[in-house]
Amino acid sequence: MHSEKIDHIGIAVQNLDEAQPFWEEVLGLHFEPREHVEDQRVVVAMGHLGESHIELLEPTGPESPIAKFLEKRGSGIHHLCVKVDDIEEALRRLKDKGMRLIDEQPRAGAAGKRIAFVHPKSTSGVLLELSEG
Amino acid sequence: MHSEKIDHIGIAVQNLDEAQPFWEEVLGLHFEPREHVEDQRVVVAMGHLGESHIELLEPTGPESPIAKFLEKRGSGIHHLCVKVDDIEEALRRLKDKGMRLIDEQPRAGAAGKRIAFVHPKSTSGVLLELSEG
Repeated sequence: MHSEKIDHIGIAVQNLDEAQPFWEEVLGLHFEPREHVEDQRVVVAMGHLGESHIELLEPTGPESPIAKFLEKRGSGIHHLCVKVDDIEEALRRLKDKGMRLIDEQPRAGAAGKRIAFVHPKSTSGVLLELSEG
Repeated sequence: MHSEKIDHIGIAVQNLDEAQPFWEEVLGLHFEPREHVEDQRVVVAMGHLGESHIELLEPTGPESPIAKFLEKRGSGIHHLCVKVDDIEEALRRLKDKGMRLIDEQPRAGAAGKRIAFVHPKSTSGVLLELSEG
């Protein structure tokens, strides 16, 4: 298993129309068209930054995990996503080392990628997403 | 002004010896020797991840900004650092656009880089560091 790069930083925001201009117009990031990820009840705006992305996440309803995060902490960095070359091997390795996983098996994330979340208990408080491809 | 890449993600930790093995031994990041940044009252461990770094920050005393963050929020992601090609132009641009800055002028960061922090009020709650070089 190889950790290749930071795939993206997920930032929870109340309102994409208010949050996106800072990253797009002030910092100059190029953004993809927004994507509605029904499974997570969020609208996603992905801005390119080198080999990584800034992922702005607006909840579509109060049951969204992002809505709950916003209620508790306010807007800010929600998670870090690291790209790995083999997510199944990565999950096996983490499990073997006694790490706590949110997803024991890969599931489908945005843009058809296979992803899994690691529990903050095992990562110094960081909600860590692993992504393959 | 051009935003080039994610330079690093800063993660506040209680204890480097407990936090580093996850990133080093489980995720396989290569770490530089630790650096004591007196100005910020932290010891820093930098792990390479693609074109970016994971920066683990342990406070050296209760007056460190990282100690205060840990007290309030617990361990987790503390800041995001974006590399820009011209930090003075970046700060002028942010000021012109009405953004709130923590540092109006660049100051010296780790490894002799010129850095400045932008206030979370202007960035959807993200403590954003800009770094040149």
